[in-house]
Amino acid sequence: MAQQERAVKTRRAVLEAAATVFAEHGYTAATVADILKTAGVTKGALYFHFDSKEALARGVLEVQADRRLPEQEIKLQEMVDVAMTVAHRLRHDSILRAGARLSADPIGRRHYGSAWPLWVGMLAEIVSQAHQRGETLSHVVPHEVAELVVSAFNGVQLYAQLETNLEDVEHRVSVLLQHLLPSIASPAVLMRLDVAPDRGERLIREMSAPVPMAV
Amino acid sequence: MAQQERAVKTRRAVLEAAATVFAEHGYTAATVADILKTAGVTKGALYFHFDSKEALARGVLEVQADRRLPEQEIKLQEMVDVAMTVAHRLRHDSILRAGARLSADPIGRRHYGSAWPLWVGMLAEIVSQAHQRGETLSHVVPHEVAELVVSAFNGVQLYAQLETNLEDVEHRVSVLLQHLLPSIASPAVLMRLDVAPDRGERLIREMSAPVPMAV
Repeated sequence: MAQQERAVKTRRAVLEAAATVFAEHGYTAATVADILKTAGVTKGALYFHFDSKEALARGVLEVQADRRLPEQEIKLQEMVDVAMTVAHRLRHDSILRAGARLSADPIGRRHYGSAWPLWVGMLAEIVSQAHQRGETLSHVVPHEVAELVVSAFNGVQLYAQLETNLEDVEHRVSVLLQHLLPSIASPAVLMRLDVAPDRGERLIREMSAPVPMAV
Repeated sequence: MAQQERAVKTRRAVLEAAATVFAEHGYTAATVADILKTAGVTKGALYFHFDSKEALARGVLEVQADRRLPEQEIKLQEMVDVAMTVAHRLRHDSILRAGARLSADPIGRRHYGSAWPLWVGMLAEIVSQAHQRGETLSHVVPHEVAELVVSAFNGVQLYAQLETNLEDVEHRVSVLLQHLLPSIASPAVLMRLDVAPDRGERLIREMSAPVPMAV
């Protein structure tokens, strides 16, 4: 393995380990020693990439939204897709679970910030484009909708996390979107949106499927 | 002061102090010593009412919804009123802020529970009655709507708490309700609902105003 490739792999392993520990114990209770043990790398390797617990938290937050989703004919479908894929991944991906927990920690976030501005910015851009294309109702304010979706989504995932251990998180997020979208999307767009609970899972499966060769 | 009246006052003072400390530091970091200092009561007085930190947390959660709101002609207005008065009180009332924080604490809630079932039960009852009266759209499932409103509300208040120190929490909750209600209420009911950001403040002011004497 080339040296650079190895460094990328090590960095990712450390981030995954940090996410696992942060998601499980929260920022304050987590220790670099725990993360080191979970990552199975040397102290030197960890500190080469991240020089503190704070830097580890920041690193976990930076990679929250690094999965690009396919463009859709209807722009608002892309907002649904962000929400439904995050809902699906929350169940299996400690990076996203850690992101949610770190962002909601009132003490920790003073040091490392939060993932919310990143999600709000991404959704505001999507809603803004949808607005320009005439997909939304005329009163829609993109930034307001983006903040509403991010904050309500976070409440719903937290509820699912604490009440049902995330088992029904996709159903709950689907219910949230079904209730929010009629006051965001125009009727003609609304009826063509796919907000089924398994939308995220299907999309992720499609994205990871090998591209068929042209015959 | 009669002995019983004094006991009630002391109990309330202890709960207020516990709420202040829990809201500020969270359950794990809070200590009974902090609460004792904040309450300004003797150790004996505190332990007479609550024999542990856990009992204090449970006590704070039990009094979350002890303020009865006036009945409204439209039943769904009562759901709006619960949300808008809680949004308003969050800014000034540490009992409610502590309730939100304690309920979202994954470790603590294993010991003392959460305020969410109480809010969900209250809203499910309101939506169920609204449903029977024909105020809601036919597809509405009262318990599902109640869980959605409680979880999304919690996400919105948490966002406001961490991003704007609750300064615009009433505006944000109003935006949430404006987006959710079109898919809950029938159009004729919808147009008669008062979801203005100052609805909670007005209602609380009316409730605490002295009843005018009959002339």
